[in-house]
Amino acid sequence: MRGLYLIPGWMSRRDGGAEELARRRAVVQRVAGAAWTMDAWETPGGPASIESAYEEYLSVPGAVERLVEAERAGVDGAILGCFGDPGIDAAREMVSIPVVGPGEASMLFAAALGHRFSIVTVLDSVVPLLERLAWQVGVDRKLASVRSIGVPVLELDRDPDETLARMTREGQAARDRDRADAIIMGCMTMAFGDRQGELARRLGIPVVNPVYAAVKLMQAQVELGLRHSRRAYPVPPKLARQAAGSGAHGAH
Amino acid sequence: MRGLYLIPGWMSRRDGGAEELARRRAVVQRVAGAAWTMDAWETPGGPASIESAYEEYLSVPGAVERLVEAERAGVDGAILGCFGDPGIDAAREMVSIPVVGPGEASMLFAAALGHRFSIVTVLDSVVPLLERLAWQVGVDRKLASVRSIGVPVLELDRDPDETLARMTREGQAARDRDRADAIIMGCMTMAFGDRQGELARRLGIPVVNPVYAAVKLMQAQVELGLRHSRRAYPVPPKLARQAAGSGAHGAH
Amino acid sequence: MRGLYLIPGWMSRRDGGAEELARRRAVVQRVAGAAWTMDAWETPGGPASIESAYEEYLSVPGAVERLVEAERAGVDGAILGCFGDPGIDAAREMVSIPVVGPGEASMLFAAALGHRFSIVTVLDSVVPLLERLAWQVGVDRKLASVRSIGVPVLELDRDPDETLARMTREGQAARDRDRADAIIMGCMTMAFGDRQGELARRLGIPVVNPVYAAVKLMQAQVELGLRHSRRAYPVPPKLARQAAGSGAHGAH
Amino acid sequence: MRGLYLIPGWMSRRDGGAEELARRRAVVQRVAGAAWTMDAWETPGGPASIESAYEEYLSVPGAVERLVEAERAGVDGAILGCFGDPGIDAAREMVSIPVVGPGEASMLFAAALGHRFSIVTVLDSVVPLLERLAWQVGVDRKLASVRSIGVPVLELDRDPDETLARMTREGQAARDRDRADAIIMGCMTMAFGDRQGELARRLGIPVVNPVYAAVKLMQAQVELGLRHSRRAYPVPPKLARQAAGSGAHGAH
Amino acid sequence: MRGLYLIPGWMSRRDGGAEELARRRAVVQRVAGAAWTMDAWETPGGPASIESAYEEYLSVPGAVERLVEAERAGVDGAILGCFGDPGIDAAREMVSIPVVGPGEASMLFAAALGHRFSIVTVLDSVVPLLERLAWQVGVDRKLASVRSIGVPVLELDRDPDETLARMTREGQAARDRDRADAIIMGCMTMAFGDRQGELARRLGIPVVNPVYAAVKLMQAQVELGLRHSRRAYPVPPKLARQAAGSGAHGAH
Amino acid sequence: MRGLYLIPGWMSRRDGGAEELARRRAVVQRVAGAAWTMDAWETPGGPASIESAYEEYLSVPGAVERLVEAERAGVDGAILGCFGDPGIDAAREMVSIPVVGPGEASMLFAAALGHRFSIVTVLDSVVPLLERLAWQVGVDRKLASVRSIGVPVLELDRDPDETLARMTREGQAARDRDRADAIIMGCMTMAFGDRQGELARRLGIPVVNPVYAAVKLMQAQVELGLRHSRRAYPVPPKLARQAAGSGAHGAH
Repeated sequence: MRGLYLIPGWMSRRDGGAEELARRRAVVQRVAGAAWTMDAWETPGGPASIESAYEEYLSVPGAVERLVEAERAGVDGAILGCFGDPGIDAAREMVSIPVVGPGEASMLFAAALGHRFSIVTVLDSVVPLLERLAWQVGVDRKLASVRSIGVPVLELDRDPDETLARMTREGQAARDRDRADAIIMGCMTMAFGDRQGELARRLGIPVVNPVYAAVKLMQAQVELGLRHSRRAYPVPPKLARQAAGSGAHGAH
Repeated sequence: MRGLYLIPGWMSRRDGGAEELARRRAVVQRVAGAAWTMDAWETPGGPASIESAYEEYLSVPGAVERLVEAERAGVDGAILGCFGDPGIDAAREMVSIPVVGPGEASMLFAAALGHRFSIVTVLDSVVPLLERLAWQVGVDRKLASVRSIGVPVLELDRDPDETLARMTREGQAARDRDRADAIIMGCMTMAFGDRQGELARRLGIPVVNPVYAAVKLMQAQVELGLRHSRRAYPVPPKLARQAAGSGAHGAH
Repeated sequence: MRGLYLIPGWMSRRDGGAEELARRRAVVQRVAGAAWTMDAWETPGGPASIESAYEEYLSVPGAVERLVEAERAGVDGAILGCFGDPGIDAAREMVSIPVVGPGEASMLFAAALGHRFSIVTVLDSVVPLLERLAWQVGVDRKLASVRSIGVPVLELDRDPDETLARMTREGQAARDRDRADAIIMGCMTMAFGDRQGELARRLGIPVVNPVYAAVKLMQAQVELGLRHSRRAYPVPPKLARQAAGSGAHGAH
Repeated sequence: MRGLYLIPGWMSRRDGGAEELARRRAVVQRVAGAAWTMDAWETPGGPASIESAYEEYLSVPGAVERLVEAERAGVDGAILGCFGDPGIDAAREMVSIPVVGPGEASMLFAAALGHRFSIVTVLDSVVPLLERLAWQVGVDRKLASVRSIGVPVLELDRDPDETLARMTREGQAARDRDRADAIIMGCMTMAFGDRQGELARRLGIPVVNPVYAAVKLMQAQVELGLRHSRRAYPVPPKLARQAAGSGAHGAH
Repeated sequence: MRGLYLIPGWMSRRDGGAEELARRRAVVQRVAGAAWTMDAWETPGGPASIESAYEEYLSVPGAVERLVEAERAGVDGAILGCFGDPGIDAAREMVSIPVVGPGEASMLFAAALGHRFSIVTVLDSVVPLLERLAWQVGVDRKLASVRSIGVPVLELDRDPDETLARMTREGQAARDRDRADAIIMGCMTMAFGDRQGELARRLGIPVVNPVYAAVKLMQAQVELGLRHSRRAYPVPPKLARQAAGSGAHGAH
Repeated sequence: MRGLYLIPGWMSRRDGGAEELARRRAVVQRVAGAAWTMDAWETPGGPASIESAYEEYLSVPGAVERLVEAERAGVDGAILGCFGDPGIDAAREMVSIPVVGPGEASMLFAAALGHRFSIVTVLDSVVPLLERLAWQVGVDRKLASVRSIGVPVLELDRDPDETLARMTREGQAARDRDRADAIIMGCMTMAFGDRQGELARRLGIPVVNPVYAAVKLMQAQVELGLRHSRRAYPVPPKLARQAAGSGAHGAH
């Protein structure tokens, strides 16, 4: 099977970006196991990081284009690699292969671990976006809180211990004040930092890494032959009519 | 005062589009009254119509750019002229002038007319988008139903009487089966058809035209000095840091 | 157009009440603009102030009578001038002209400015009444909190700076602890104090003045020909049967 | 112990009203049992029947006055005898003895009999009032539907078998279409018709008579020394200050 | 009438257990009054106390068996004597007499005393169980909080004043921080301690004792001929088919 | 890795039960893949099938005992093989290895495939149990309906085509009337019938088989080192104290 981890930004453009992209490919390959070939793509023209609704929207047209390309190239399933799952509904309209969002996957996984969970993320500016995402996923009643550590995405790796210390602090507040039974790392750069084990030890409650959750959910959908519902995510009507008119056999 | 009605699509590109754009400008001018100068702009590169999540996202980057332009040009308030209010959160992050969505405005107006309202729209493909919008606006508990008439946006004007007949049929079902106290016309092309009076007479319950609701809400915000909250819609952090770094005094 | 601001209490009976009534008339006239003639009436027999459910109910029969009178006198739209909107459902059953509540209007306006809003009001005794009102309006999910400043209605004007200081304090708590994106002044006497600009500057988030919101929403309903739904607010059945029996042409 | 069944209308004024009042007194006495002395009062000046929000409000000031009188006369607990529980919050502010509403009592009783219940009532005009009441009681999630039989209060007794036939029809629809596990008779005149046994046999699911539920809940509160919370229903602040100022020892 | 208070544990097995069982019988007899004969049974094989989901489940098969026995013995109504109401749905499937849960009864009673209530219980381990119970009862929207005093069931009586002091502390926090209008004692051993009067005096808000609420609700159901709905709690289908096959006339 | 599929009933006791148990083991082994060794156990003393709350409770003590045994035997993760997930909270209190419920797993998987899903199950008697389960899982807002085909568990295999025909009929109703985007097979015997592919083809929307979903979610939890939160599912306090007292190092 072939899987794709798609970054909806233009990673290789920043210093060390190409290396980071390769490193991320290796991580998802390791999680996916030997039966799968995992690739990691970026989205040329996409934003450097996504910390606002505006940047989410900027990323979508290019990312969807990449996913259409991936489907044509024979990829079996894809992960939309930003925790906010930006444009996942559009992606599902445009391709028939499973497209999994890390935010969605980790919230669904967290829902199975306890009664309430919190998300620890980067900046206050994404809090309402993640609250809306929880509603969209359908588990908002279990969302105890979204807490931010006040560090922008592109500075998370500058001082990993300080980042972890802040995540610990907010995780403790989530557990003790907001009554969270589990914590989700609410940013992919956080997640690729791979400190969930250490964080879970410090907090004494499970910590969900969205990279891992997304890979597992994507694999499960592909292996079980599950596809997103066309009743929920229909092919855009004008495209569907064109396809019908041209006698095409695919959705577009 | 200067107001803008922004179409997030490329209207002038289709047959008769330039005339329709001019006609719409005249309509919003009439609703806004003599104390306001209303303009109507389109978004070059935007989609021909919006009937899917995908087309919503396609429209956003260009539309937000136009709104930034409008703010610089001294416009006092703007309407994001698609019923689904696509990218209104992004727009609010990027400008400080009021940006009103017709979906939002008409749902808020309808909420004041009764206990429950329904939206009559074009195609099934937009139903989940409008249900999410109702949640975002905050009045989802009052949403009785979203019903579609099965006519694409670009064919609404082909046979206006058939369109009205279908809207009447769905409006009756909304009133009698879904217990709607009021009806919202859930598409701007429907709304510019200007048949709300006739429809209200047929149904015996109020019908909200989103063009009108949006103009009134936008004017009210401007005239009362109300602006969207920066706590809810902060300037994207990277832009804010750049602005701070360059000694700039505006938000961007 | 003619509009009415109806105070459901007997204002002229207290010291300086007649002057205050005249002053309020001037305020609503100013907000409404030159195209409208605004009047302000009181309700003889009504309570001196409304700070309890009991006083709300005491005010309703007289206030509805005044509104029936106003409709007969040719008034085009009315505002029920108490923030709790007491008896607005009854008023809508009894008249056909738009009747707007300041609580309702300001909550709908606030819902368009952010994700969550708080109400800052006078006394703890009205908190549950306003929570119920938010449910009735349909935006309770966006209500972050109702906070009171501990000053009775009739003492708000005794020390306006102390009043403003307390409103600032509760507004800050609403913003920082309850995560409110916007604040509503939750009492008409507060609102006619006209300090929303100063309060907004201090808090850095928008402040909705219910006088202003109510005037704008009432004007919009009248100008757009929108009336409350008779499906939601039917004429009381016995009155309707009498009217039908007597061959009368109005609702009553 | 002494209990009061208060009719918030002026029953003796209509033909046979005095007899009906006496009959109702006998019914509540029978339900309450020998350890209690039950009285039934009416409210001079109150409406003939309550089928609208307007009539609800008309009834409140007089009914509350009667309850204050009853408390002074040594009554231990009272029932506000209209299914919509109009003004029960005001009543609780003004007296310290238990005041139970039949709507509230029967919804709480029905909540203990199954997962969902429906209310069968008189006219469409009271449906939104009862939906709001269910919210106020706190069991709205269990409310399957409110259905009306299309017979005004004052005509319910004209043809009791036709009334029962209609209640059966709506009860069946509630059970089969709305998935109600239990039915509440949603009007006191219906309830005093005393056909709950026959209706329950026809429907095969429990039927709650609000007269009976209210008597039992009122007795339980009195016998257990439970009083409504002053935190929820404080004495109206101006009255409390007067009482404090005059050295009075009661709440008013 | 005959009523049963069933303890779903094996009380007589612990030191002083037989005496405590007798004492509890006397308490429920006193509350029920002379017209009722109350018995108190235990459940041999049941857990010593219930402080976890696991112990709840352990108690159910035996307790249901005892209730089936009680119905056969002519008992008219029963109370399932654990605050978590464990297995009440199973009990209702298996018997036709009213079975009332103290958790359910006290939440319904508390819902009638104010807008919000809190439960003060023994240990953190039962908090999620009681939150689920509130949802099942249908009044979860009124549940302000569940707070625990950190004392296991079997140690509550060791130092009654310390127990009361802790209940007071948590009750105050519920009232002041969680905005509870009323408090429920969330454990039957707490409840049989009979300190609700003292606690209510200290807190200034009503305190519901689940023993008392359960007795009153059970009596009301029996006296009014109300039974749980078979639509909600059907006889287990295999048993029903066996009963039908054997020509038996009861449900089992 | 070793996984366990635990049937909470006594399957081998019925005709052909041992063969069916072996067949089910083979199915879960096939789904789990070669890297896992899957076992299938039954629960001696457990019910023949589970179609009521009562039978759910009957199954729990034995099933939990089997899971404790499994953990001691070195099993890495377990599936509680009944669609209603009976006692899953108790199981999690008593073991530290992942215990996944098929109801939970399939609802979480379905939530990722669309906006709303329906469950097609055996009998009306389990409908409220599954509605409660959806609430417990946290996705009740996405539950469009639970529909039953009117065939008891033990008769599902009697006429597999009739069973499939009925599932198709209810699936269509779920899709067309209840607006379900996906269907879940709501019974394990249904699920082991393995007709999800055929059903999905007939309905045109995805069908989730709970056997498959549970295996995948269990594997994911084990492989990612995720365990249920001890904050949500603490070791029963008395057991924890005993363990602490005895110097034991495990939870029990």
